[in-house]
Amino acid sequence: MKTFTVEQICELLQGELEGSTRQIITGPEQLEYATSVQISFIGNRKFFPLWEKSKACAAIITNTIKGEPGEGRAFVRVKNADLAMAQLLELFMPEPPLFEHPIHPTAVIHPTAEIGKGSRIGAGCYVGPNTRLGENVTLYPNVTILDNCTIGSATVIWSGTVIRERCVVGDNCLFNLNVSIGGDGFGYRPSADGRELVKIPHIGNVVIGNGVELGSGVCIDRGKFSSTVLGDGTKIDNLVQIGHNSRTGRFCMMAGNSGLAGSVTLGDGVIVGGSASISDHVTLGNGVLVGGGSGVMNDVPDGGKVLGYPATDAREMLKQWVALRKLAKEG
Amino acid sequence: MKTFTVEQICELLQGELEGSTRQIITGPEQLEYATSVQISFIGNRKFFPLWEKSKACAAIITNTIKGEPGEGRAFVRVKNADLAMAQLLELFMPEPPLFEHPIHPTAVIHPTAEIGKGSRIGAGCYVGPNTRLGENVTLYPNVTILDNCTIGSATVIWSGTVIRERCVVGDNCLFNLNVSIGGDGFGYRPSADGRELVKIPHIGNVVIGNGVELGSGVCIDRGKFSSTVLGDGTKIDNLVQIGHNSRTGRFCMMAGNSGLAGSVTLGDGVIVGGSASISDHVTLGNGVLVGGGSGVMNDVPDGGKVLGYPATDAREMLKQWVALRKLAKEG
Amino acid sequence: MKTFTVEQICELLQGELEGSTRQIITGPEQLEYATSVQISFIGNRKFFPLWEKSKACAAIITNTIKGEPGEGRAFVRVKNADLAMAQLLELFMPEPPLFEHPIHPTAVIHPTAEIGKGSRIGAGCYVGPNTRLGENVTLYPNVTILDNCTIGSATVIWSGTVIRERCVVGDNCLFNLNVSIGGDGFGYRPSADGRELVKIPHIGNVVIGNGVELGSGVCIDRGKFSSTVLGDGTKIDNLVQIGHNSRTGRFCMMAGNSGLAGSVTLGDGVIVGGSASISDHVTLGNGVLVGGGSGVMNDVPDGGKVLGYPATDAREMLKQWVALRKLAKEG
Repeated sequence: MKTFTVEQICELLQGELEGSTRQIITGPEQLEYATSVQISFIGNRKFFPLWEKSKACAAIITNTIKGEPGEGRAFVRVKNADLAMAQLLELFMPEPPLFEHPIHPTAVIHPTAEIGKGSRIGAGCYVGPNTRLGENVTLYPNVTILDNCTIGSATVIWSGTVIRERCVVGDNCLFNLNVSIGGDGFGYRPSADGRELVKIPHIGNVVIGNGVELGSGVCIDRGKFSSTVLGDGTKIDNLVQIGHNSRTGRFCMMAGNSGLAGSVTLGDGVIVGGSASISDHVTLGNGVLVGGGSGVMNDVPDGGKVLGYPATDAREMLKQWVALRKLAKEG
Repeated sequence: MKTFTVEQICELLQGELEGSTRQIITGPEQLEYATSVQISFIGNRKFFPLWEKSKACAAIITNTIKGEPGEGRAFVRVKNADLAMAQLLELFMPEPPLFEHPIHPTAVIHPTAEIGKGSRIGAGCYVGPNTRLGENVTLYPNVTILDNCTIGSATVIWSGTVIRERCVVGDNCLFNLNVSIGGDGFGYRPSADGRELVKIPHIGNVVIGNGVELGSGVCIDRGKFSSTVLGDGTKIDNLVQIGHNSRTGRFCMMAGNSGLAGSVTLGDGVIVGGSASISDHVTLGNGVLVGGGSGVMNDVPDGGKVLGYPATDAREMLKQWVALRKLAKEG
Repeated sequence: MKTFTVEQICELLQGELEGSTRQIITGPEQLEYATSVQISFIGNRKFFPLWEKSKACAAIITNTIKGEPGEGRAFVRVKNADLAMAQLLELFMPEPPLFEHPIHPTAVIHPTAEIGKGSRIGAGCYVGPNTRLGENVTLYPNVTILDNCTIGSATVIWSGTVIRERCVVGDNCLFNLNVSIGGDGFGYRPSADGRELVKIPHIGNVVIGNGVELGSGVCIDRGKFSSTVLGDGTKIDNLVQIGHNSRTGRFCMMAGNSGLAGSVTLGDGVIVGGSASISDHVTLGNGVLVGGGSGVMNDVPDGGKVLGYPATDAREMLKQWVALRKLAKEG
């Protein structure tokens, strides 16, 4: 366990110390749950009353919030408490899981696979023919990567994740648990007699840029032909569905349980709220915001904000909600 | 296969026998699908007509329902047919999957891991350094538990489930298939130039109480700092998303495809309907009911019932729906 | 890599050639992304302008669309461009992942399991006691099938999928990545003192017909007693939840993130849109269409089309939406 004095933390965050504490600090914790050897955060003045009840010996606090730490307690005053918190978390970051063997003897790696320098492969992993891992790739135990894939340098893939054949993953990506990449897309056509459904083959792949993060349980289907594409820096939360031939721009964010049907196109910096879904062939421009729970059935131009089901301009939808509440009251 | 006579079943359920059958009963089945060697249930008088068409040789029936079993068929009359059904299911419960080896030779268990007496570990499992399993823990094949975890006694974990480092699981828990516990939370901050997203480290863990059950495909993220917590007896259905630092009370229930965003707090006995989602930092009091498909954006006090999107008091939302239907008709 | 001349493709599709190209064609691609060695599709006249900007050397085009391919480029004119595309994809279909060993030496297969002729089992798979695989079954690496299951001939199961004990799968099925079959259903009853939840045992199984396809991350619970059933030819997209004792007819389709609660019954040919959910004990007749994002709480007769939350007749729901928009504008 890493420990620090409040003075050390203050110096590392380049903050200003107010008050003092002799506690050796073992980690950060929310005000409500902190013990006397933990440091907490006050990023908004409305949380100040919680400080008085908290057992934390110290807090990172935004410069502009008034108040004193009290007897035997300390504040580290900073300009940006959110940024300081991120730095503090890096400080206390525990060691990641251990690799005793860089490549575990139970991992099955095809002789034609190329494993870059410094890469580590856990127990029970499978790496198929002609797959190439860059340098310093980490595969935690029980990851499966099938044939002819390329995984970029310094990418980390957690346990249970499966990547099917011919998919391409960039550098510095992070895939959480039980992610599914490259499954067949959901495409069928009626049989000649119209009574059955015939599978449309999916011969495309998935291409994931650099710095992409995927939450646990995310599913990304391969393209029918061509590729399903996630742009550099895109961040996808848990249990998100990305259909065949969808494409996201750079630094998009999709929150939990949301989904793109097939052939959806997102520009750069699109944000999709939790449980929202976007219909087939819809295009959302750069910087579009989709509210949580929305169902988007039409294109949205750059900078648009949509909400609701069916999704419409957010201000218009809020008006509809107000009108409906009023109508019910008058009813 | 376990078999019983109707007399044996009647005695075990402490029921009252009406009519008789000589069939040896091989199991329970719904009225519609039962064969002549199966027993069925009539918990509500509206299902009585199905009895007449059913091939079942016997039925568990609520005391107060009128009607006769008919020639060569039997009723076991009980006070509470639901409870009796649960008892009957235990009676016919088949053997669970076999462990020929208490610890399969292909399982990879770190020498520093502690495995409690009576625990069983299936083929292809991974148990990391310093992880401790209590007594009588069952890990079915291909479970992954990383470093420094604690798993309580008699907990059963089904195949494909992954638990990341430093997570804590109580006694008597049951995790279904492909569950993901302890993935990084979905937290990013803009980079200094505002053009990129920087990952916020997640150094917390997941703490799961006693008697908690998790459906297949459930994803529970670790806390940013501090813990994501599921209270004792909480039951979570398939494909539910629980964001970082969310906390549930005791005996909460969340139905399939529902989700908690980050830092959501549920009191005791909260029930969340299927496909409902709760926004960041929302608090639901004890006994709150959230209707299926709802999107909850605001706190709800103890005992509240909310519905709709955006969720509001259930009675108010029903009024809105009625008003809208009326408006469309008049339109 | 497979390659063809445009003349070969034209002959295989029984099309009519217009114009000509000397390129050796390496695969199909969308108009926007195609290079000069790729063939594309024009199924609708509105996409014709994209052809002029496209680098593709050839296109499959519907008979009735006017326009010429231009210098050094070719059209393959066909009656049904969608069908031709499916045929073309089969033509270019790359080899699936390699099995060097029909049964990988690291797979754990119980001696009582029966493996049909021509079946292949990848690294790290587990096949439990008394489980029977038909002929030509494919299990990709890290699939888990527990005791007493039956898997039909020519069924393909991708990595990460788990099938629990006593489940039955038909012939020619295709299961994508990390599918969960046979988990316990979500059923509890209050304890005697009303303060706790007691698990109801789930002693049923899952029965899957022939030609069923399941997307990645799909979860199908076993029946409480009796079976959860998917009818022949049913196609289920990613991250779909199917609760205990639900039953689908033949050739149903469920799109991504949708779900059936417990004991739902679907007739034949039912189509459920993305993110839609169907409540407990609801019955949908043959050919019912459920719009994306809907929440269905009541039975729907054969041929019904429902939409919205709560779902109602689609035309009625569209009227409600129009009425609300008008009300907000007037407001």
